[in-house]
Amino acid sequence: MSMLWSVRVGLGVVALSLSVEVFVWLYHRLRPARTLNEVLFFPSEVSCVENLFKASSPHSCHCPLPHRVETSFSRLLCHLLSASSSLDLCIFAFSNLDLSRAVLALHSRGVTIRVLADQDYSVITGSQIGVLRKAGICVRGHVGSVHMHHKFAVVDGRLLITGSLNWTLTAVQNNVENIIITHEPDLVLPFIKEFQRLWVQSEPDWCHFLSN
Amino acid sequence: MSMLWSVRVGLGVVALSLSVEVFVWLYHRLRPARTLNEVLFFPSEVSCVENLFKASSPHSCHCPLPHRVETSFSRLLCHLLSASSSLDLCIFAFSNLDLSRAVLALHSRGVTIRVLADQDYSVITGSQIGVLRKAGICVRGHVGSVHMHHKFAVVDGRLLITGSLNWTLTAVQNNVENIIITHEPDLVLPFIKEFQRLWVQSEPDWCHFLSN
Repeated sequence: MSMLWSVRVGLGVVALSLSVEVFVWLYHRLRPARTLNEVLFFPSEVSCVENLFKASSPHSCHCPLPHRVETSFSRLLCHLLSASSSLDLCIFAFSNLDLSRAVLALHSRGVTIRVLADQDYSVITGSQIGVLRKAGICVRGHVGSVHMHHKFAVVDGRLLITGSLNWTLTAVQNNVENIIITHEPDLVLPFIKEFQRLWVQSEPDWCHFLSN
Repeated sequence: MSMLWSVRVGLGVVALSLSVEVFVWLYHRLRPARTLNEVLFFPSEVSCVENLFKASSPHSCHCPLPHRVETSFSRLLCHLLSASSSLDLCIFAFSNLDLSRAVLALHSRGVTIRVLADQDYSVITGSQIGVLRKAGICVRGHVGSVHMHHKFAVVDGRLLITGSLNWTLTAVQNNVENIIITHEPDLVLPFIKEFQRLWVQSEPDWCHFLSN
């Protein structure tokens, strides 16, 4: 009889262990995946970002800036350069040369890029919109409002980058600014729809006069 | 023997049911609660917002604007007016009269309000920063950067309102703009820390010269 009870207790322990295992597995399986939610504040410290563009030769830069220092700006560049299939950019003011270089790098890698810009700010001195167009990137100008004041990007249709930061050197290095970077579908999807809505409304041939 | 097996099977079914109940309860208990994530786009339609300020007499307004129409702007006002204990506002440009009225209404209800403003934009014609200060609201001016370009508010220490939208009439009615409204702690907490960081750095007595 004691033998029978030992077997019963043993089986009970095994059953309990299995139940706990199954519960833990199901919990991790069924709970919503934790999404990326990152906030960056500016002004950003200034550091060398060459390694982000030339990952294969990370030690080749000898400029006087600090190297391998993670800053708000380097985080922003990293998220942008993570694009593997598409980048939709909806931007009020775009004159930052490093950000322009990042967009051109993605274009040369074959990432599909669409840039929607404010018409007035696309023609001011230093704007990179003409540069992007000359490189063959699809650029449109928004019409029909006082300002197209958005400053957001959607990377690969799933990562939203948005905030107060215009893509200018002053905004990055001198202003107090913020950027949110998120995978949260409740936030990303409305911006994808907004981009599409504005894109079809906007002027495809407007930028032929951009000379820079 | 068949009686004994019936009891065993019965107990097994009861145990299984209880296990399922416990699992479902634990799953709902342990999974992260679904947070508010709302995106508003502008320009907003224009509608009467009197009912948001005078909830006790919702039918008293006879102005020619559409009534009881929910717009991006009315949603923004609703979220602001939901404040019951505190409002921390960090704003580049603030000249919108309805938003000023909302902040004043919260102040008169006893909500603790702190306003951190860009110094240059606080003195332009139509800025409401002087009006808020005259009403006794605690206002500070940010120093030490080209622009304090944030446009965010934290309601009751848990609801973040942020985006591209300055608190001006042009931004609300004429520009293409966005606002994110979220309870997500990963997004809210960095903005609370940023507000506190800027608040202690900023000038408490700077606005004594504001005359409007």
